[in-house]
Amino acid sequence: MRRKTLVAAGALALGGLAIGSAVQAVSPGFTDDRSATLAKAISPEKPRNVILLIGDGTDDSIITAARNYELGAKGRFALDELPFTGAMTTFGLKTGTDPNDYPINYVSDSAPTASGWSTGKKTVDSRISQGPSASDTAPGTDYDTVLEKYKAAGKRTGNVSTAEITDATPAAAGSHINLRECQGPANMAKCGYAKKSAVPAGKGSIAEQLVDNKIDVLLGGGAARYAQATDAGPSVLDYAKSTYSYQAVDTKTALDGVTSLDKGPILGLFASANMTPRYEPLTATPAGAGGPTTTCKTADRGTQPSLADMTDKAIKLLDNDKGFFLQVESAMVDKQEHASDICGAIGDVLELDNALKVAQAYQAKHPDTLIIVTGDHAHSTQIVGNGGTTTDATGATGGKATATVKTFDGDPMTVAYSTAAPGSSQSHTGSQIRVAASGPQAANVTGTIDQTDLFSTMLGRTPSK
Amino acid sequence: MRRKTLVAAGALALGGLAIGSAVQAVSPGFTDDRSATLAKAISPEKPRNVILLIGDGTDDSIITAARNYELGAKGRFALDELPFTGAMTTFGLKTGTDPNDYPINYVSDSAPTASGWSTGKKTVDSRISQGPSASDTAPGTDYDTVLEKYKAAGKRTGNVSTAEITDATPAAAGSHINLRECQGPANMAKCGYAKKSAVPAGKGSIAEQLVDNKIDVLLGGGAARYAQATDAGPSVLDYAKSTYSYQAVDTKTALDGVTSLDKGPILGLFASANMTPRYEPLTATPAGAGGPTTTCKTADRGTQPSLADMTDKAIKLLDNDKGFFLQVESAMVDKQEHASDICGAIGDVLELDNALKVAQAYQAKHPDTLIIVTGDHAHSTQIVGNGGTTTDATGATGGKATATVKTFDGDPMTVAYSTAAPGSSQSHTGSQIRVAASGPQAANVTGTIDQTDLFSTMLGRTPSK
Ligand SMILES: [Mg+2]
Ligand SMILES: [Mg+2]
Ligand SMILES: [Zn+2]
Ligand SMILES: [Zn+2]
Ligand SMILES: [Zn+2]
Ligand SMILES: [Zn+2]
Repeated sequence: MRRKTLVAAGALALGGLAIGSAVQAVSPGFTDDRSATLAKAISPEKPRNVILLIGDGTDDSIITAARNYELGAKGRFALDELPFTGAMTTFGLKTGTDPNDYPINYVSDSAPTASGWSTGKKTVDSRISQGPSASDTAPGTDYDTVLEKYKAAGKRTGNVSTAEITDATPAAAGSHINLRECQGPANMAKCGYAKKSAVPAGKGSIAEQLVDNKIDVLLGGGAARYAQATDAGPSVLDYAKSTYSYQAVDTKTALDGVTSLDKGPILGLFASANMTPRYEPLTATPAGAGGPTTTCKTADRGTQPSLADMTDKAIKLLDNDKGFFLQVESAMVDKQEHASDICGAIGDVLELDNALKVAQAYQAKHPDTLIIVTGDHAHSTQIVGNGGTTTDATGATGGKATATVKTFDGDPMTVAYSTAAPGSSQSHTGSQIRVAASGPQAANVTGTIDQTDLFSTMLGRTPSK
Repeated sequence: MRRKTLVAAGALALGGLAIGSAVQAVSPGFTDDRSATLAKAISPEKPRNVILLIGDGTDDSIITAARNYELGAKGRFALDELPFTGAMTTFGLKTGTDPNDYPINYVSDSAPTASGWSTGKKTVDSRISQGPSASDTAPGTDYDTVLEKYKAAGKRTGNVSTAEITDATPAAAGSHINLRECQGPANMAKCGYAKKSAVPAGKGSIAEQLVDNKIDVLLGGGAARYAQATDAGPSVLDYAKSTYSYQAVDTKTALDGVTSLDKGPILGLFASANMTPRYEPLTATPAGAGGPTTTCKTADRGTQPSLADMTDKAIKLLDNDKGFFLQVESAMVDKQEHASDICGAIGDVLELDNALKVAQAYQAKHPDTLIIVTGDHAHSTQIVGNGGTTTDATGATGGKATATVKTFDGDPMTVAYSTAAPGSSQSHTGSQIRVAASGPQAANVTGTIDQTDLFSTMLGRTPSK
């Protein structure tokens, strides 16, 4: 028995916005040969605009779990239906004493992975768009990022996240520092060389660097980082306003009110730390949380905009003749997987997909826009068996902690978390993950790529003939 | 420090066979835009030959682990470099009383998954190319398979596996029965209706049905099933020889000696039950098996051919003007994952890749051949962190049982098994898995497909324009 009526793909109304025709429901059971459709989708031109959508920790397993829950096993997200798809490796390095042979780190955190696509180069855990070195506290070489290169080319840039905007993923787009924890001027204990008051002066904390990069659109959580005092005295927020004329907003209503960058770039900080996930938590337990009738509860997000709201505003503000680069992160998929929270993670995959639909609506009118949707590394959630009216040769439900929800299909789905003790933070895993794209040069995500390969693709490769 | 010298992609000598030029090393760090290359690879024609290569339980995680171990994190298997790639869903059904609403089973075993691509339809766990029903022992409707349709069209057919050839995956290609366990005439306790001595007479056990389907090339393990007496008296093997003139072989040397199907189809049974994996087991333990200097030991496979040997022979025997369908399964990836055996699973991913290279060498000369490489469902192996000289923000190694090996990169890789208690059989998981293809209509694996969609692709869709 189905849980609710399926919203027809391609017709979803989102925040008053009619979503475009780029979504094509074709599977399972599609009948036509896709060869011609795929051929027509290939465009070797360099993209004018790039929209990179990241689901932190969003691997094939949580995508499948989210699809099962939201749309049923036969459903399709917009991200499922992008024409070009591939697998992407996410390994990083470990610190080491031989600069020619840093050890490989087969399971990365969010800093080297985001640094990988931002800079085209590998680095070590916790490091933000800066090369490897002999130890965590020894800074490496700063590497230019895609966002910085777009900025230098006179294009507009945007950086949107549901985490603190100073968290590793958005940080890597537009800052350089040895440790991801150095998010604000009061968090610089292990990044002393980077303090603005250091001699010689450093680039400052992540919060400061993001505004010093004059990123046109900065939207997310992290207000507490921007309330910290800079080494010179004023808060980072006041510094951003006085030095660069940043327009500061802190609610969806205020965000709605900003309709131009004429008065300055925009800094929207909608939560003290991370923003609120779409759903309230359902936390796995050793005895098994939830059950065959459990559904996820929508959280009260107060005055916060959704990721789709932020993406919509960012695109409207960034749209210009020269082009733009926009990174959008659905950050809480990862954080709720760490917390063994199946509802939190599932809901923010849907948030990612809704943000994608906004980007697709823009792409439909601006076909010189490359859209890439992927994760940064694999994570801990496993979909496991749950018995029932079948031989169930797959064996009993396993895992250290499990949770069960009733899917759109009306059937129970069980997930397990086992990479850490129940109640502790679950760990990332090292599997390659899915990458999908549409638009010019989107064919470059097919096959098996490394996440550093996205760097050249987003900058635009020399068109093939 | 690298463990050994990398064998250059495209130049691997395999069983005396020079492997073809279809392998193209491009990543990480590829520089050219792939648009033109991908466009040239698109062919909407119906394939004349189809070679389907299955790694049982072979998901993105074990592919990544195998790549890290065999080639290093930056290496590329042949299967990595196929031009068309997508994600594939693998869910099945559960038995139920409402034929219009069977519950969804989010984690499938190998029977409904193989039945899915073989017949284009979903079914329940343990069921072989037969529809769902109210209970495990109630037979469903038999569905025609791709192999049977090729046979009916006058084409040749082959079925190769490193498991018992009567195991679920090869069984689904050419037999129909309510329970996968009914492999030989002595195993029919729960499949009584299907016994040949039943009234009315049934189709017989899986072993009998495979030969009654006159499959031209049957190669794998399972000799003990064929030694069982049929209801009529003689062994299944004697029945196959006397009724259909099957040429029986049981060693690689004997297999080498068969060079034509003129005397009859071939039945090669090289092990009493399953064949021997490439590597000896390294079994994960709660304390952590192996370590940073542990490498996998090559097993003594006695007189058994490799999967590549069997694939090579099968293709040579099947090659004909009308075309053929060949299913090749690297079965022990799954079984060694069940056993928490990282070396066994890794080695048989390499075996799958070596079989693919054989298929690619044929395809290079016969471009009207569609090659598809995929798994049947996701599995339990997770690549987890192992600390070391880094901040390792991903947290400590987790999992109920772990094992560590030294990869080709010279660095330790740790994997965890947690879907069952250590020592018990690890369980399948429900993630979508990778599918890749090359040749005519290979574009139909892109995006997100369901495994039942492979059915129409393998039969050949109406070419698009
Ligand atoms: Mg993040
Ligand atoms: Mg199998
Ligand atoms: Zn991450
Ligand atoms: Zn994380
Ligand atoms: Zn299987
Ligand atoms: Zn299995």
